[in-house]
Amino acid sequence: MKEEKEKLFIQMAITQWKISNEKINTVFETISSKQYASPIAPGANSAAWILAHLAGANDNLFPLLTLGDLRFPMINGMAKSNHSPHNEIEKDELKACWLSINSSLLHEFNRMQPEEWFDRHNSISPEDFIKEPHRNKLNVLLSRTNHQAHHAGQLALIK
Amino acid sequence: MKEEKEKLFIQMAITQWKISNEKINTVFETISSKQYASPIAPGANSAAWILAHLAGANDNLFPLLTLGDLRFPMINGMAKSNHSPHNEIEKDELKACWLSINSSLLHEFNRMQPEEWFDRHNSISPEDFIKEPHRNKLNVLLSRTNHQAHHAGQLALIK
Repeated sequence: MKEEKEKLFIQMAITQWKISNEKINTVFETISSKQYASPIAPGANSAAWILAHLAGANDNLFPLLTLGDLRFPMINGMAKSNHSPHNEIEKDELKACWLSINSSLLHEFNRMQPEEWFDRHNSISPEDFIKEPHRNKLNVLLSRTNHQAHHAGQLALIK
Repeated sequence: MKEEKEKLFIQMAITQWKISNEKINTVFETISSKQYASPIAPGANSAAWILAHLAGANDNLFPLLTLGDLRFPMINGMAKSNHSPHNEIEKDELKACWLSINSSLLHEFNRMQPEEWFDRHNSISPEDFIKEPHRNKLNVLLSRTNHQAHHAGQLALIK
């Protein structure tokens, strides 16, 4: 019964992440190329930057959760550089990367066992993890889902 | 050990919710009265509306998680009515409600036992809950934290 609950909340966390991804899928499907290249509000980042930032953040989950290397290092570099225009990636190309990253991640997430989720992520040392056991892979997933929701809220302002 | 993980996960979910609340606290502390009353972007909701919407959404957690009645029914009514200005509540008054709601909720959350978190919330029938056990109180907390992050992202655009 305890084990069932453990699997249930891991599934809940994955589902919240999926729901958030799907909102971004809808953005890719509904915005025009002009909206993609434009700031989402006066003086704010472009939709292209936010979307590249989100794709890079998800791609970064591969090394962070010890699931392998970055799939698209170019995008990841962009996600780290703040506020510069990323219009050099076309919308359809970025969308293809985004879908590919998330599909691979979801495959890995569904394969991962509960003990893997409660293991440390790659940015915390074994010594610190003993003192801070909440800094595990599942917590990264919760935190990244919130990060994505933060930017999804901004993308929802596109008119 | 299993029980420890269960408690750890619940604590992780509460912490994410708290982190998100603290971002909104900062918004209350940093925006001017003029910014409070103004749309966050052209044609978008005012900060006042978004903040009342978030306070109402948190207040609604009391009945939804069977923790008691709404503390501020007036705000909750506002949260449900879309896109109307709520400037009738002064910033300081809304901030006081916001802090009071979250302080009471946090007190309840820290008191709740794991089995309560995995019980059904108040908007699902016992029959449906048997089929959909993920629709529990903890899932409401994850989902509300994402909802709050969505709007926090919008409030971050205030200049």
